Amino acid sequence: MASVLIPLAEGFEEVEAVALVDVMRRGGIDVRIAYIDESLGHGKVVIGAHGIGIKADTSIKNVISEDFDMMVLPGGWGGTYALAENSRVLELLKEFKEEKVVGAMCAAPYALKKAGVLGNHYTCYPGAQEEIDQPGYRDDMKVVTDGNVMTSQGPGTAVCFGLAIVERLVGKESMQTVKEAMLLDYC
Amino acid sequence: MASVLIPLAEGFEEVEAVALVDVMRRGGIDVRIAYIDESLGHGKVVIGAHGIGIKADTSIKNVISEDFDMMVLPGGWGGTYALAENSRVLELLKEFKEEKVVGAMCAAPYALKKAGVLGNHYTCYPGAQEEIDQPGYRDDMKVVTDGNVMTSQGPGTAVCFGLAIVERLVGKESMQTVKEAMLLDYC
Repeated sequence: MASVLIPLAEGFEEVEAVALVDVMRRGGIDVRIAYIDESLGHGKVVIGAHGIGIKADTSIKNVISEDFDMMVLPGGWGGTYALAENSRVLELLKEFKEEKVVGAMCAAPYALKKAGVLGNHYTCYPGAQEEIDQPGYRDDMKVVTDGNVMTSQGPGTAVCFGLAIVERLVGKESMQTVKEAMLLDYC
Repeated sequence: MASVLIPLAEGFEEVEAVALVDVMRRGGIDVRIAYIDESLGHGKVVIGAHGIGIKADTSIKNVISEDFDMMVLPGGWGGTYALAENSRVLELLKEFKEEKVVGAMCAAPYALKKAGVLGNHYTCYPGAQEEIDQPGYRDDMKVVTDGNVMTSQGPGTAVCFGLAIVERLVGKESMQTVKEAMLLDYC
């Protein structure tokens, strides 16, 4: 069974995070949500950019890359800056880039850049490429795959990004089944 | 400021609930999430159909219809059946239909039917119309508005449903701003 790690930090974009988890779990992927703020306490609820609290499964401290096939970062600038400043997240991004797959969407390709793992071709939220400040930005694709680095644009493309990950880690047939069940004909 | 009530019961469709809250809050609507299961405890985390836990703001017991302009139900069969069996939810649906606006998507128009407030024209998740068993099903529109009853199809149309609610309760300009910011050109 394919497995994916999603780190969440306060200020993450809620519809991006939840769309990714929902689509990937429907596609048969074992998705684990990891919080990075150790002050959260037992509730493990991480608050997003629009005040929606999502319960995480574990702490990033308990995570080892060996247990996963991919690591994906949802966007939202608050969450992105927090992830980009977290040494364990940056370390994991490097490990995943070396041996597995990394992904990021919206503002979060900024964290890939910080970790030095952003590809030569990528996409992100329109305007975020100025902050990311690296050549190779593509504005004409919802999802850009460059080797083992996958990126996507923003809230409206999150479900399509989830489908692209399901296709890569599980297969085209599973992707197609989820696409039809979720009424995602626009992806 | 417009305000919307979203009741959540275990087994709700996560991307539908979160897309609705995210889009509506971006559109300037005060959204309150209410849980119906009194055994939840202080954490107030309601678990969705794909294992994602969302923190609710309050209990449905603390809610009065006077504080809101609309009540919207996300889908997912587990959550839908639980809402449709909850007497307080059915009572609120009748109050909102009389004096305000009600909405439901995916499987949840079933709860509107149970409360006797489903309109003459509606949409829902393809196949759910058999369980709803009421004439007037439309399969050709992402969002159907019939007077003060709004319905939508499923996960892939949740963001578009949110935009339609923002347009109705706040205005076209706010809707357009959210649509562009979230890259929802397919709505």
